Amino acid sequence: MIDFRVRPPAKGFLNTIMYTDSARRNRYTRQLGLEPAPSAEAKSMDLLLKEMDAAGITLGAITARVSDYFGSVSNADVAEIVKAHPGRFVGIAAVDPTNRKAAIRDIEQALTLGFKGVNIEPGAYPCPMYPDDRRLYPIYAYCEDHSIPVIIMSGGNAGPDMSYSFPVHADRVAADFPQLRIVISHGGWPWVPQTLHMAFRRENVYISPDMYLYQMPGMDEYLKAAGGFLSERFLYASCYPLTPIKDYAEWFRKLPFSPEVMERLVHRNAAELLGLGR
Amino acid sequence: MIDFRVRPPAKGFLNTIMYTDSARRNRYTRQLGLEPAPSAEAKSMDLLLKEMDAAGITLGAITARVSDYFGSVSNADVAEIVKAHPGRFVGIAAVDPTNRKAAIRDIEQALTLGFKGVNIEPGAYPCPMYPDDRRLYPIYAYCEDHSIPVIIMSGGNAGPDMSYSFPVHADRVAADFPQLRIVISHGGWPWVPQTLHMAFRRENVYISPDMYLYQMPGMDEYLKAAGGFLSERFLYASCYPLTPIKDYAEWFRKLPFSPEVMERLVHRNAAELLGLGR
Amino acid sequence: MIDFRVRPPAKGFLNTIMYTDSARRNRYTRQLGLEPAPSAEAKSMDLLLKEMDAAGITLGAITARVSDYFGSVSNADVAEIVKAHPGRFVGIAAVDPTNRKAAIRDIEQALTLGFKGVNIEPGAYPCPMYPDDRRLYPIYAYCEDHSIPVIIMSGGNAGPDMSYSFPVHADRVAADFPQLRIVISHGGWPWVPQTLHMAFRRENVYISPDMYLYQMPGMDEYLKAAGGFLSERFLYASCYPLTPIKDYAEWFRKLPFSPEVMERLVHRNAAELLGLGR
Repeated sequence: MIDFRVRPPAKGFLNTIMYTDSARRNRYTRQLGLEPAPSAEAKSMDLLLKEMDAAGITLGAITARVSDYFGSVSNADVAEIVKAHPGRFVGIAAVDPTNRKAAIRDIEQALTLGFKGVNIEPGAYPCPMYPDDRRLYPIYAYCEDHSIPVIIMSGGNAGPDMSYSFPVHADRVAADFPQLRIVISHGGWPWVPQTLHMAFRRENVYISPDMYLYQMPGMDEYLKAAGGFLSERFLYASCYPLTPIKDYAEWFRKLPFSPEVMERLVHRNAAELLGLGR
Repeated sequence: MIDFRVRPPAKGFLNTIMYTDSARRNRYTRQLGLEPAPSAEAKSMDLLLKEMDAAGITLGAITARVSDYFGSVSNADVAEIVKAHPGRFVGIAAVDPTNRKAAIRDIEQALTLGFKGVNIEPGAYPCPMYPDDRRLYPIYAYCEDHSIPVIIMSGGNAGPDMSYSFPVHADRVAADFPQLRIVISHGGWPWVPQTLHMAFRRENVYISPDMYLYQMPGMDEYLKAAGGFLSERFLYASCYPLTPIKDYAEWFRKLPFSPEVMERLVHRNAAELLGLGR
Repeated sequence: MIDFRVRPPAKGFLNTIMYTDSARRNRYTRQLGLEPAPSAEAKSMDLLLKEMDAAGITLGAITARVSDYFGSVSNADVAEIVKAHPGRFVGIAAVDPTNRKAAIRDIEQALTLGFKGVNIEPGAYPCPMYPDDRRLYPIYAYCEDHSIPVIIMSGGNAGPDMSYSFPVHADRVAADFPQLRIVISHGGWPWVPQTLHMAFRRENVYISPDMYLYQMPGMDEYLKAAGGFLSERFLYASCYPLTPIKDYAEWFRKLPFSPEVMERLVHRNAAELLGLGR
């Protein structure tokens, strides 16, 4: 079982708002109706690995980040975490979109380090932007040309205000780069039918609602699509530490999908997208 | 039973993307969970007429179109199809909004040929625009002044990106031309509550979700409104060939409406709007 | 039980569209599936008070208004109604945002008269604006600095077209004035998941869907949030005379909330927000 969005309590992550402001984090967790993970409270990597074992999470995708508000985590830090726990994690690289040449160099370097995709969080950058900002287009072009999947944070608290989650911006990217595989992280929530429309229309769009799936408005629509036309393009993720990695996985595995669809949602879709062996 | 959106396999329709790219068409049909109509696969007008008979569709509204992307179908072609099958079809005329004088002349000519309404597809024009584009306002004004119903494609793949389906644009038209009867084709999907709000507020707005009704997010809300405040302003349509005209009609007729409401939704509302005898 | 949005048949309210155009008002009421209140039809203050007694409404919040389209009601008129019926009503003051100094003076004066909040209806002003219009920012700043709750009409027919109900505008206000307590009147409907997202993210946002709760698309999502993370920030309101104050209250009280949550939704949240003794 692959968890497509994990931010473990290690290296630079410990300086991000998710770990420095546990009250804020726990408020979100509890508003969902969940309890914080012991590993998150204790900031313990060992505990997280045990929770992953207990949950049957065999691999977690770790996203690097460039952000003043949330806190940055470098590709180097992510690479070290991945290296320190062989086979347990895979890295998704972050870039600074305000310098396109350095961004491409960072992607090239990340690929040599084993990273499997690029994480774009437009509204979280020090200079917040929308997913269809012109400054991101050279990066999308590079990733399309080199078959590198891109994760776009579009949904939830994706930027300073709600406009940063409007799915129209990602829809334009999907239209302009039809061979670029795009994962909509946070699932475009709360724009659920709109995001499903995007995936209905654009075959290169994948959806991962992560924490915004759990008991939120639109859950039934996400799940219906995941069991239907989106069954090959839905990716399971916990958004840990915002949800408890174990409880969330156990809840998800009980959802009434067929065994074949469930295996796709929690493993095969992500493995194929990231080019991992099965 | 009147089907408010039919594009038969004849004349210019055969050169549109719906028939030239059957893989694309069938992908949409199957994503809905339906199977393509035999008549669509065979491009057979005879088969379509038989499917209409079997479905109890006594009249189909055929929409002409001006579009580079989807392919154009002239008013002349639609007139010929209508003429070739007396009593089975009614024409809805297309216009080119970039030449307002020619557009008005085309409408006048279409009326003399028996057309019953004007089809506006803003995002599909060679120069895509929104429904509240200033270039369309002389056309809306003419239609309001002459009591000609207008069908506005607003919803689904209404243009190059999702912004073309934002219902705010049609909402402004409905506000600015309060006597103009407006059918929202594709039902404003995926903006379902927003489109229902528009109809709740504007008495001149009719809704026809066509293919975007079937098992899509928002279906229950469409149906609840169709059985309630919208019962006199909801129009049944299949969007053939994107759905199978027969299976779709059979599914719709089993929906739990009262007989009186059902008769309105599948016949009387459309007949009154188009000024047809009952 | 506190009704957070009441416009009684008295003083200036009798010259507003709600009472001068009863056909329009009753159309909305009946589209919801409700019958107009006898007091609204008779324009009778005595009847309203009896309906409030029968409904168990012990206090109604009366909102003053500055609007050409809907009709204005002055703070002085609201103050007189409140004074004429001791203990039955509480006033929410209106201001003209085009003159910031006079607006602040009006708020100061209203506070001395016992008003408990400020009513902002951006789309209803003679010069319609969005909730994040710069002209409103000095007023928000004053209210934040003086701990005065603000009611923003954002939802429903909040302005000339649907764009005035886009919740992104109120979301920006909530972000820019994090200590300002903001009630989203009309509940941001039809943008239900989006408005719930706003409240999920911003702890200073309260939601009162009033008439747009009743049997409308999104009702289940409002109610789920009201029983969950929003239980301390949801406010009951009837939007009288657009719904019948008695029937609406009786319907609401039968909703399956726990007694403690119900008491919060219909009384305690409003009492605390307005600084009333319990």
